[in-house]
Amino acid sequence: MNLDYTNMLAPTVAGGVDAEAWSASTAAFAAAHAHVASEHARGVLGFLDLPEDDRLQRQVLDAAAEIHGRSGTKRVTDVVVLGIGGSALGPIALRTALAAPRWNELDDAQRGGRPRLHVLDNVDPASVTALLGRLAPASTVFIVTSKSGGTAETMAQYLVVRGWLEQALGDAAPRQLIFVTDPEKGALRALARRESVTALEIPANVGGRFSVLTAVGMLPAAMMGIDTHALLAGAAAMRDRCATDDLVRNPAGVFATLQWLADTRHQRPIHVLMPYSDALRDLAGWFVQLWAESLGKHRAPGDPGFGPTPIPALGATDQHSQVQLFMEGPGDKTVTFIAVAAPTGDVEIPALHGDVPELGYLGGHRLGELLDIERQATAGALARRGRPNMTVQVDRVDANALGQLFMFFELATVYAGALYGVDPMNQPGVELGKQFTYAMLGRADAEQARQEWNLLPKPQANRMV
Amino acid sequence: MNLDYTNMLAPTVAGGVDAEAWSASTAAFAAAHAHVASEHARGVLGFLDLPEDDRLQRQVLDAAAEIHGRSGTKRVTDVVVLGIGGSALGPIALRTALAAPRWNELDDAQRGGRPRLHVLDNVDPASVTALLGRLAPASTVFIVTSKSGGTAETMAQYLVVRGWLEQALGDAAPRQLIFVTDPEKGALRALARRESVTALEIPANVGGRFSVLTAVGMLPAAMMGIDTHALLAGAAAMRDRCATDDLVRNPAGVFATLQWLADTRHQRPIHVLMPYSDALRDLAGWFVQLWAESLGKHRAPGDPGFGPTPIPALGATDQHSQVQLFMEGPGDKTVTFIAVAAPTGDVEIPALHGDVPELGYLGGHRLGELLDIERQATAGALARRGRPNMTVQVDRVDANALGQLFMFFELATVYAGALYGVDPMNQPGVELGKQFTYAMLGRADAEQARQEWNLLPKPQANRMV
Repeated sequence: MNLDYTNMLAPTVAGGVDAEAWSASTAAFAAAHAHVASEHARGVLGFLDLPEDDRLQRQVLDAAAEIHGRSGTKRVTDVVVLGIGGSALGPIALRTALAAPRWNELDDAQRGGRPRLHVLDNVDPASVTALLGRLAPASTVFIVTSKSGGTAETMAQYLVVRGWLEQALGDAAPRQLIFVTDPEKGALRALARRESVTALEIPANVGGRFSVLTAVGMLPAAMMGIDTHALLAGAAAMRDRCATDDLVRNPAGVFATLQWLADTRHQRPIHVLMPYSDALRDLAGWFVQLWAESLGKHRAPGDPGFGPTPIPALGATDQHSQVQLFMEGPGDKTVTFIAVAAPTGDVEIPALHGDVPELGYLGGHRLGELLDIERQATAGALARRGRPNMTVQVDRVDANALGQLFMFFELATVYAGALYGVDPMNQPGVELGKQFTYAMLGRADAEQARQEWNLLPKPQANRMV
Repeated sequence: MNLDYTNMLAPTVAGGVDAEAWSASTAAFAAAHAHVASEHARGVLGFLDLPEDDRLQRQVLDAAAEIHGRSGTKRVTDVVVLGIGGSALGPIALRTALAAPRWNELDDAQRGGRPRLHVLDNVDPASVTALLGRLAPASTVFIVTSKSGGTAETMAQYLVVRGWLEQALGDAAPRQLIFVTDPEKGALRALARRESVTALEIPANVGGRFSVLTAVGMLPAAMMGIDTHALLAGAAAMRDRCATDDLVRNPAGVFATLQWLADTRHQRPIHVLMPYSDALRDLAGWFVQLWAESLGKHRAPGDPGFGPTPIPALGATDQHSQVQLFMEGPGDKTVTFIAVAAPTGDVEIPALHGDVPELGYLGGHRLGELLDIERQATAGALARRGRPNMTVQVDRVDANALGQLFMFFELATVYAGALYGVDPMNQPGVELGKQFTYAMLGRADAEQARQEWNLLPKPQANRMV
């Protein structure tokens, strides 16, 4: 992949990052790079080491092979991930990008005997009921994924699924389960030991939103027949390209530094990611979590809050939805396009209705060509209107490219954390909501939260309509 | 439905809308309401009249019935909408909200003999090929939807589909087509006349993003067996509730005015819509287009741009993605929750593993209860941190409620247009990108755009990494 940031800089684009500020930022980036290296050295950025972790990768591939054989003569037709946030967004992005389109609608032969993949990322009863109603217990495997091993939504899903399995299979229920969690800590790990459930590891030093290249994403990927070696090779190649602290040779560094400058010096805190590829649609959702949860936080108690706001978009679709706002709304955004040089299976537009002006000009072109021309046109129009934008280009959407993209955005996130001066690895802001939930559900250790909850303003009848 | 805005106002919530500003806004809203009424009177807000347009509704229901019988003995198994933006987001939102979950994965009996609904909202060749590869030409109907009748992406899809149908069915190809477009103007209308294709109407005074209650949304809905009368009844009821210019009795007025005040007086230009319901997930995407494309624009040539930035979210899922940013990031957002009082088919969480603290507290509760408690907890935690939020509540997700929600947000959008002082009905900002696309595709009438395109800065090698 490469990154073209021509349209991010002034004076090329009127509203772009000031050329002097850009030149002056090499030192800031070098410091951020050094900070990331030292964090890595003290062992907190485990996602950087995943490509070489042969033990973890063997664990994933062995488990995938074992699951295929698990039901004896009965083949596994469905895999269900029970997980939320970082446990769900990676598997979803992988399925959309690398499995055949409409994977879950294909029949067994079209899927090459590989299972469907469902991701249950919410506790909405209508969705849970609808999914379980379509599954056969004995040919379904549930991957229960939680880094902490105690996520409320995932534990609730697990209990419902466990009850459903026990009703159908009795003592054989645990055979349909696999856990993915911390190697030592948490409720899932303890349950796995007690009940002899296979449990794969998310290394202690890999945060949930940085975990797509652990068993969290790799086990579902392997089950669908995706080339996990190529994913890791792509990730390793990108990490190695970013070993340099020379800003203009470090793609993740350029992305992070430009976004940081656009936000902090040019009041552009909204960062749009807009792939022109249906296959990369859900990569944008994965990026939103990474960028939002890692960077949106306080530096100190009581401060007003920092960090950019990511927005997912899809080209060309969003040209008919959000692009009007990106063009003419407030100048508070940057847009990052993802372009695919060689689209899969391009289709020629037939030269029909050649006498109708609104249709005639399309005949003889190809759909993929149209898509890419629309991307160029949108980038050009944004530039013309002083709206900074940049373009990530990949040759094609394959496992190697996905590995590169995952590592690119993960590294950019930790660089941005250093530039913003926040810890990209924590998420303290969601704790209060969790405590309030525990309090309302009557969890014994939530007494303090219950008292705080009771002090909150209650709905007022004169503020209801 | 009702709207609880307790948490939008100061001093209840520290960062909320100032009570004096709120009181003072009754006059501004009354003026906006009068402006909308006069715009309606001069005939430009046709969406307000759709619930009473019996002729249009009969047209939709007759067409739905006719399509069922169209293939003679061969039943229609698949309906494909070819459309983008306002032509796609409404049908998608309706399918997700009102058809059974995983509609397209159900078999014929489970769908009650109703067709699957596919929405092709992009020109990605991989998606188009994958979809056509799964369809039988003779049992598929394509609804080609374009208000203008000449949208490039939709025309390209149409040409590809037309070629595919002709190859399979020869002269019978037009029998598998139905157009939804302007009653008089545009290429689709002309083609329909020439080739005797059934063509339903989008009234000239109903803009694409306000068209969900025309044939654009209603024909796909009727085909899936959704109660279109109830949709219209809900919409009419909401419109009638909003007949008053007394702000505190007008739900759409309260929503619009609070968002406008939060943006323009309190620097909160980012407006999150976060349903706690999988069924309403895609309603948020529909809202994003409505709010972004209607309000994000210049008031005069050369001005810096106005309008709020909408963001879609989903509860509880996004508590593990975006909520950290909403809690602790910059104070530049409002959050609007959608709560469902009575979830469909609630599920009890079994009391298993009662001895494990991370699981034991969940047993005996229900999934829908957990989902709603999490919403309350998130709203409370945001309020506690000075982050203004409000809650739309519906009794259940049914056709009447959806009709209310569509009209609520559409009316709020035109009120907000009046408050911001922009025309919510146009989208001039996307024209330049369209012209650049025409130029690159060699359309004869795009000479001026070609010259402008050639003047744009080209990618620079030293800004590529």
